Amino acid sequence: MIRVAINGYGNLGRGVEQAITRNADMETVVVLTRRDPSSLTTLGAPVAHLEDMAAWEDKVDVCLNCGGSATDLAEQGPQAAAHFNTVDSFDTHARIPEYFAAVDAAARQADHLALISTGWDPGLFSMLRVLGESVLPDGATTTFWGPGVSQGHSDALRRIDGVLDARQYTLPVPQTVEAVKAGDDVELTTRSMHRRDCYVVAAPGADRSRIEREIVEMPNYFADYDTSVTFISAEQMRAEHGGIPHGGTVIRRGRTSEGVSANVTFELQLGSNPEFTGSVLVATGRAVARMAARGERGARTVFDLTLADLSPRTPEELRATYL
Amino acid sequence: MIRVAINGYGNLGRGVEQAITRNADMETVVVLTRRDPSSLTTLGAPVAHLEDMAAWEDKVDVCLNCGGSATDLAEQGPQAAAHFNTVDSFDTHARIPEYFAAVDAAARQADHLALISTGWDPGLFSMLRVLGESVLPDGATTTFWGPGVSQGHSDALRRIDGVLDARQYTLPVPQTVEAVKAGDDVELTTRSMHRRDCYVVAAPGADRSRIEREIVEMPNYFADYDTSVTFISAEQMRAEHGGIPHGGTVIRRGRTSEGVSANVTFELQLGSNPEFTGSVLVATGRAVARMAARGERGARTVFDLTLADLSPRTPEELRATYL
Repeated sequence: MIRVAINGYGNLGRGVEQAITRNADMETVVVLTRRDPSSLTTLGAPVAHLEDMAAWEDKVDVCLNCGGSATDLAEQGPQAAAHFNTVDSFDTHARIPEYFAAVDAAARQADHLALISTGWDPGLFSMLRVLGESVLPDGATTTFWGPGVSQGHSDALRRIDGVLDARQYTLPVPQTVEAVKAGDDVELTTRSMHRRDCYVVAAPGADRSRIEREIVEMPNYFADYDTSVTFISAEQMRAEHGGIPHGGTVIRRGRTSEGVSANVTFELQLGSNPEFTGSVLVATGRAVARMAARGERGARTVFDLTLADLSPRTPEELRATYL
Repeated sequence: MIRVAINGYGNLGRGVEQAITRNADMETVVVLTRRDPSSLTTLGAPVAHLEDMAAWEDKVDVCLNCGGSATDLAEQGPQAAAHFNTVDSFDTHARIPEYFAAVDAAARQADHLALISTGWDPGLFSMLRVLGESVLPDGATTTFWGPGVSQGHSDALRRIDGVLDARQYTLPVPQTVEAVKAGDDVELTTRSMHRRDCYVVAAPGADRSRIEREIVEMPNYFADYDTSVTFISAEQMRAEHGGIPHGGTVIRRGRTSEGVSANVTFELQLGSNPEFTGSVLVATGRAVARMAARGERGARTVFDLTLADLSPRTPEELRATYL
């Protein structure tokens, strides 16, 4: 059994906990939290305060960091790597090199292994970008996101005066996806690639046309996109927009000889973004526990993983059944 | 520069040669053949007879075995592993464990590394099956092949009396693909998953209805499928069916919690089956050259590869740009 600590118990932490119940070779031995431990109800694992992390060092094979934001993880990553082998989903792309260096130093210092920036993007999408380019070096990679809920954009909507609740969906523009797959000469711009659909619950008496104008003109968030705004009731919001779906598509199109092309397409359709991200963290956790047991130390990324380490199957089973 | 030997110069060997021209860190240093070396015209590399393999041992980092059939490879694999680090596309699924053992023994004996059964299936599809199951353990994997040319089925058509030439395309049944993605309760049978379209050039005066009947009733090959037969002219065959396209789709659908599902879909659309297979062999060859240089010995499969080894980029570049 691989003994797992879940560090943080928001949407992602609960997604990880669900995923562990679906992996027979792994168990949650503790949930670590900054909150009052008695305030959490887990699926069964004990809860400990983050400050008592050190007490769990010998009882945990890998700690899955589920901090809710880049700010959380920037601190949580090196801190946890001092106590455990770790996995995280750090996703501030521009800061990855510096974060990698910080986690690498902390992990080496404490004789641990730490894998950063897994999940689906960064994570599976990153893996498929490298795979696509490696097998089709003469080509181009395009990533589309959605259909799915963008939390940051939903939050931006909720900050508008007169908005009680809101949900924002990002959607790839289907014609552009098809053009990329067909190798047609299409200009890839912010507007040509994605559109944004907003569902808004307005306060009674709020000026809906002012709200709509503020949304579609909001710089960075919406002004560069074709954006639709639909006002709905609080009941509709609860009934129809309760999930956190997401997904996307990575397309590599390249030439294998003059005039001959190939497409490698990878698509995710996720009923729950945090649950799927949690599932990837758990599979990565298995790999990290195994690699650490073989003596690997320092920081790693998904580019350093083998499928044999991600899978619960033995190499013999994999060769006999999955090749 | 990674120095590559191409062992065998049929469609796959020429696909490999094309792919190497698209990889700046690799070069073809020799083409090995069973035929008279003077009978081959390469893109530039010298040609040597297979029997002179040993003379190239110190000039080659990795040998890509491009034998045309499972019979070729069963012999070629262990033989080449005695002289070189190797990569092959052995695809007789049932015999993979025994072939792995034979190549492993030959490679260890000679202090080499040998990766078997790469390409796209086995190969990329195998990788995605393991990836899909690892991140969604509570689910099912379905593979569809095509649209694409099946060489074995085309050969079967050509053996029918009165058939001058023929091409057989395998196509997934779109409704079944959509049902699998949607998680609908659909029975997956030979007939529900794929159909077969045959294009046939008949000899003048041949009995076309007899040919058609022989095709659609042919056991194993066509009787279990919905099969269409279209008679065309030799000119149409040349003009419209000269390529060797193929592809397919691996779908993993699984639950991340009660009532919540996710799909991981991987799709290949290949203008040229042998050129793309060759491209995968070349990327795998890079990984094998690097792993061998680090001291790895014996047989491996695609499950033992990291993306860092498949890619020509440095780990720093990968982290900064591809995560």
